[in-house]
Amino acid sequence: MSIPSRKKLANAVRALSMDAIEKARSGHPGAPLGMADIAEVLWNDFMRHNPANPAWFNRDRFVLSNGHASMLLYSLLHLSGYDVSIEDLKQFRQLHSRTPGHPEHNITPGVETTTGPLGQGIANGVGMALAERMLAARFNRDDFRLVDHFTYVFAGDGCLMEGISHECCSLAGTLGLGKLILFYDDNGISIDGPVAGWFSDNTPKRFEAYGWHVVNVDGHNPEAVKKAIIEARAQTLKPSLICCKTVIGRGAPNACGQAGCHGSPLGREEIAAARKELSWPQAPFVIPADVYTAWDAKKKGAQMERQWNELMAAYGKRYPEPAQEFKRRMAALLPESFAALATEFIKTLEAKGLDMASRKASQEAIEQYAPILPELIGGSADLTSSNLTNWSGTKALCPADYDGNYIRYGVRELAMAAIMNGMALHGGFIPYGGTFLVFSDYARNAIRMSALMKIRVIYVLSHDSIGVGEDGPTHQPIEHIASLRLIPGLSLWRPADTVETAAAWQAAIENKHGPTCLILSRQTLPHLGRAEGQLANINRGGYVLRDGRGTPEAIIIATGSEVGTAVKAAAILEAQGHTGVRVVSMPSVDRFEAQDSSYQEKVLPAQVKARVVVEAGRTTGWHKYAGSQGQIIGIDRFGESAPGDELFNYFGLLARTVAQTVLNILQGREVPK
Amino acid sequence: MSIPSRKKLANAVRALSMDAIEKARSGHPGAPLGMADIAEVLWNDFMRHNPANPAWFNRDRFVLSNGHASMLLYSLLHLSGYDVSIEDLKQFRQLHSRTPGHPEHNITPGVETTTGPLGQGIANGVGMALAERMLAARFNRDDFRLVDHFTYVFAGDGCLMEGISHECCSLAGTLGLGKLILFYDDNGISIDGPVAGWFSDNTPKRFEAYGWHVVNVDGHNPEAVKKAIIEARAQTLKPSLICCKTVIGRGAPNACGQAGCHGSPLGREEIAAARKELSWPQAPFVIPADVYTAWDAKKKGAQMERQWNELMAAYGKRYPEPAQEFKRRMAALLPESFAALATEFIKTLEAKGLDMASRKASQEAIEQYAPILPELIGGSADLTSSNLTNWSGTKALCPADYDGNYIRYGVRELAMAAIMNGMALHGGFIPYGGTFLVFSDYARNAIRMSALMKIRVIYVLSHDSIGVGEDGPTHQPIEHIASLRLIPGLSLWRPADTVETAAAWQAAIENKHGPTCLILSRQTLPHLGRAEGQLANINRGGYVLRDGRGTPEAIIIATGSEVGTAVKAAAILEAQGHTGVRVVSMPSVDRFEAQDSSYQEKVLPAQVKARVVVEAGRTTGWHKYAGSQGQIIGIDRFGESAPGDELFNYFGLLARTVAQTVLNILQGREVPK
Repeated sequence: MSIPSRKKLANAVRALSMDAIEKARSGHPGAPLGMADIAEVLWNDFMRHNPANPAWFNRDRFVLSNGHASMLLYSLLHLSGYDVSIEDLKQFRQLHSRTPGHPEHNITPGVETTTGPLGQGIANGVGMALAERMLAARFNRDDFRLVDHFTYVFAGDGCLMEGISHECCSLAGTLGLGKLILFYDDNGISIDGPVAGWFSDNTPKRFEAYGWHVVNVDGHNPEAVKKAIIEARAQTLKPSLICCKTVIGRGAPNACGQAGCHGSPLGREEIAAARKELSWPQAPFVIPADVYTAWDAKKKGAQMERQWNELMAAYGKRYPEPAQEFKRRMAALLPESFAALATEFIKTLEAKGLDMASRKASQEAIEQYAPILPELIGGSADLTSSNLTNWSGTKALCPADYDGNYIRYGVRELAMAAIMNGMALHGGFIPYGGTFLVFSDYARNAIRMSALMKIRVIYVLSHDSIGVGEDGPTHQPIEHIASLRLIPGLSLWRPADTVETAAAWQAAIENKHGPTCLILSRQTLPHLGRAEGQLANINRGGYVLRDGRGTPEAIIIATGSEVGTAVKAAAILEAQGHTGVRVVSMPSVDRFEAQDSSYQEKVLPAQVKARVVVEAGRTTGWHKYAGSQGQIIGIDRFGESAPGDELFNYFGLLARTVAQTVLNILQGREVPK
Repeated sequence: MSIPSRKKLANAVRALSMDAIEKARSGHPGAPLGMADIAEVLWNDFMRHNPANPAWFNRDRFVLSNGHASMLLYSLLHLSGYDVSIEDLKQFRQLHSRTPGHPEHNITPGVETTTGPLGQGIANGVGMALAERMLAARFNRDDFRLVDHFTYVFAGDGCLMEGISHECCSLAGTLGLGKLILFYDDNGISIDGPVAGWFSDNTPKRFEAYGWHVVNVDGHNPEAVKKAIIEARAQTLKPSLICCKTVIGRGAPNACGQAGCHGSPLGREEIAAARKELSWPQAPFVIPADVYTAWDAKKKGAQMERQWNELMAAYGKRYPEPAQEFKRRMAALLPESFAALATEFIKTLEAKGLDMASRKASQEAIEQYAPILPELIGGSADLTSSNLTNWSGTKALCPADYDGNYIRYGVRELAMAAIMNGMALHGGFIPYGGTFLVFSDYARNAIRMSALMKIRVIYVLSHDSIGVGEDGPTHQPIEHIASLRLIPGLSLWRPADTVETAAAWQAAIENKHGPTCLILSRQTLPHLGRAEGQLANINRGGYVLRDGRGTPEAIIIATGSEVGTAVKAAAILEAQGHTGVRVVSMPSVDRFEAQDSSYQEKVLPAQVKARVVVEAGRTTGWHKYAGSQGQIIGIDRFGESAPGDELFNYFGLLARTVAQTVLNILQGREVPK
């Protein structure tokens, strides 16, 4: 059996991509055909991976940022020996197949991250490359390069137009991520046509301005691509951009070079013409044996992993403690002592009973938990002193020393989120990052991606209401709490005092399969006294904080800074003889809704119709809990610039307003507007 | 009276800024002190504006993208003669003052745009510069330069780190916006400290890569700054970046050059030291008369406007029709024929009764309305053929010809939104721009800014549900409709057929004081028959589309693609003898909520408790309309990759499910999960 030419190997990718897209009658052939030659060189000559074990820790990471080119990736996975069969390819874009329209982490073996929203894959890659450097700095020893892999990212024009490409590539340049290699599919075409009319950047120059190493190459010349990759790998102090001049849809003789082939099947005729052009006579989905053999990476991969396992074993003998710690972090297991530590800390806080801003309480929780959690990697989008995301052990990393636990992300909220996704996907880290709640807007789609990928990323979102004060409406979140609650699978906590904040942090750290937003106040919040039995209930997301006797006369539901207000309102009502008012603190609606209905009923008995909900934000979403006879006190307009205290007064978020609203309901009066 | 030195003039800005921030005990002195020298030169030697008439159409536009430096702008407005008094400055950051924490459009005379969320001001400036070029191309004649002004933008490190700076500056370079001049306050400091650790871009090189003209200058040397501005103004084919090396907090001898002075008052002692350093002996808020005189721009400004008015008058004589059209557009008045045209068009559509995807119906509405609305300036973030934002008269603009009506924004959603904000603020245009609904996430904070500024921008958001189909969960909006509804002052329409789509477009165009999101389907939607009396009610946001006799037995409320489903469900129920089922189409919840309560009660009588709401997205927010006995059919999880039809089936968004849910309620049965 002769060894097939590189062209032929690349054409196998082209054929599978065309055929699967045609069968699905949906998909994007342009990029798979255009990048096939580059991918062939990278995967066959450089990628270190084991198709039989996609989870092998020291594998090279491959990210397809231009996720619409999913058939390129699926073809590569199939050909190199992953558990992605021809049958799977035939099911491209069908319900519950292994080959969805865009690559999805957790669905397809070998897919490192979910991509589709353009540009985010590059930032995921930056996160992976950072994770590699940080783990290497922590665990490698001169004689043991335990963590040692490259991160390769494919990206198109769209990715490079997106703002996030600036944010993350600028940071990658500053941090000198030498083992990050980005391939730019410079085909000059996007959906609207030839990009020259809207994208005329000198991209090499732009990346040089970021401190990157840049190579220009003909993306259809395998030898040139190979040389470029060798050069890029040799440059260890700077990330590398390989600008590949390509023809979109290369191989489809009539469709290539045009926007039309970006996102539509080529059609039967054009595919037939392409088969001729490519000298690929095989029927759809048929790959010659010699091509399979040449692509097969299973043997090589198994050997690589075996060698690494031997290295790991030797390392374990020489450095038993680091080895154990490394294994714990690879397995994403928390230290056994964590839960007890948190429980104890929460008890202590309850006993101390301090009034404190919840952003400050968050810092104290980090201070407590971080020493036993070296996997916690913090950061802020240039708001460290406001978000209070640092602690006494904070050590910012820099190119000269990657053994840190804090990333100064700069004013780059979206990149921060997507880089955290990359670190979480890589493994070995629990990333947390801070910004103002209002600027979660900038990061929103990457927060969504954390949720879609079910990964543990912690968003520290401080300055959570009009309590922001003087900075005014541009900086005051109104709709953001409600809006983040809408993202499926995202856990959100808005703690009311030091105790709930510590519990929220514990929940976030223990939430292995999903992201968490911690919503924190700028201003001081009063401590709320609890009996010991109540502490465990915080973790249920909603619980009775203060109660009267027997069936409640009325229930006030509140979150965060408004819980203190609710408690004061209950006291006012009590002084007026209404001793049966219950206050329910609901720091996490999603957590409360995950409880069984009997617990929910215990906290919020259906028969109690007199209910008031208080939250310093949009009222939408609370009708479910207020019920048809209840009232919601919130803010349904933009804020104002003024001292925070004055604003709570101006917007009527006061104990006396809450108390009066309860009274009105109890007395059946119209509620004044 | 001698003429004060430039230093002294700049120090007046420094003194006012320090004093106002100190009085408010809140604010950001670093940038006002650091940029005072630059601002002094720009405002005293170059700015063409009339403080007595901030709305003079041909004024230079000045944007403070680093909005936290608001005291810089307020000082400039006060000193140059705008209606911003010393009393106003003393009220800095107080409730309902003219000097809020960040500059807010519509509050302070002379503030062109609301800034604070970093980077967006640059994009607003790009939009203003674009608007200037386009109006000039349309209305100027060789002998009449009716529209002819510069757009000046101040920005800091934060703005340049943000991704949006890449998006909009790349596009500005491609479009060759020669009258846009950006001043970069290169002080090397951001909140987390010296930026070298997280922002080491070679910014001049980066902007050269975008095709900008770049000048480097000492930002504290007025003569050098002046020379740079002259040079930048002379470069008419490229936008200019003036990189100004500055010292943050310049003038505060101990605080300057450090992150600490970025966002906190300097304190009494340091202010006293600064007064010495600056040789500024005056008491707080006291400005010497000679300084006032030198700054006063009222006389110059009045003369400039007078000259322009004369030019306008002469133009009116020579070119009466363009002059009338220009005045109409300056006044943001719609052509008188518009409303009648729309009404007629809507009637025609009802008569035609075509089934059509609402994105296609949107294109037809544009086709109908655009010919009489030359102020409509369209565009798409590289999804023209998907959003269908183009029409037969579409002409994309380019540097060689700005007389177009379409902007190819490239894959830059956030910049598109913020550029549209800039065009709307400039005046003369009604911008609309398209992307997929799911990627409104990327643009979210700029959409919020449209709403906060109450400006007319139209977001065309297609592919509005799982109807997206094969592209899968990364491309399928779930939470987005509910989430956009949360932004105060944002109008949202999700039309159900061609008729509602045309009505939605009409509403968006007539919504002079706020932005509108048009939420459109990818897939074909059936035409829904209406009697003539019903057509006018569409504009009320919610109306009875189909009714039984007498008081309804049950009500189905639906939006967009689910209205057809609801109508079918009602037919199923009717066939089973339930003839009293009402279907309410609610294309715009905000519009419906703006109606008087008697109309609302007519559409949704409180006594009818059997209600089902159907919408292919998050159920949150609908409890208010479903009521405690109603049911909501929606999607509270992420989507799947599969053909769209199959997904509606998979997620149970079917007429028979809706009908069964109504039946269950009517029969008092538990609703099956």
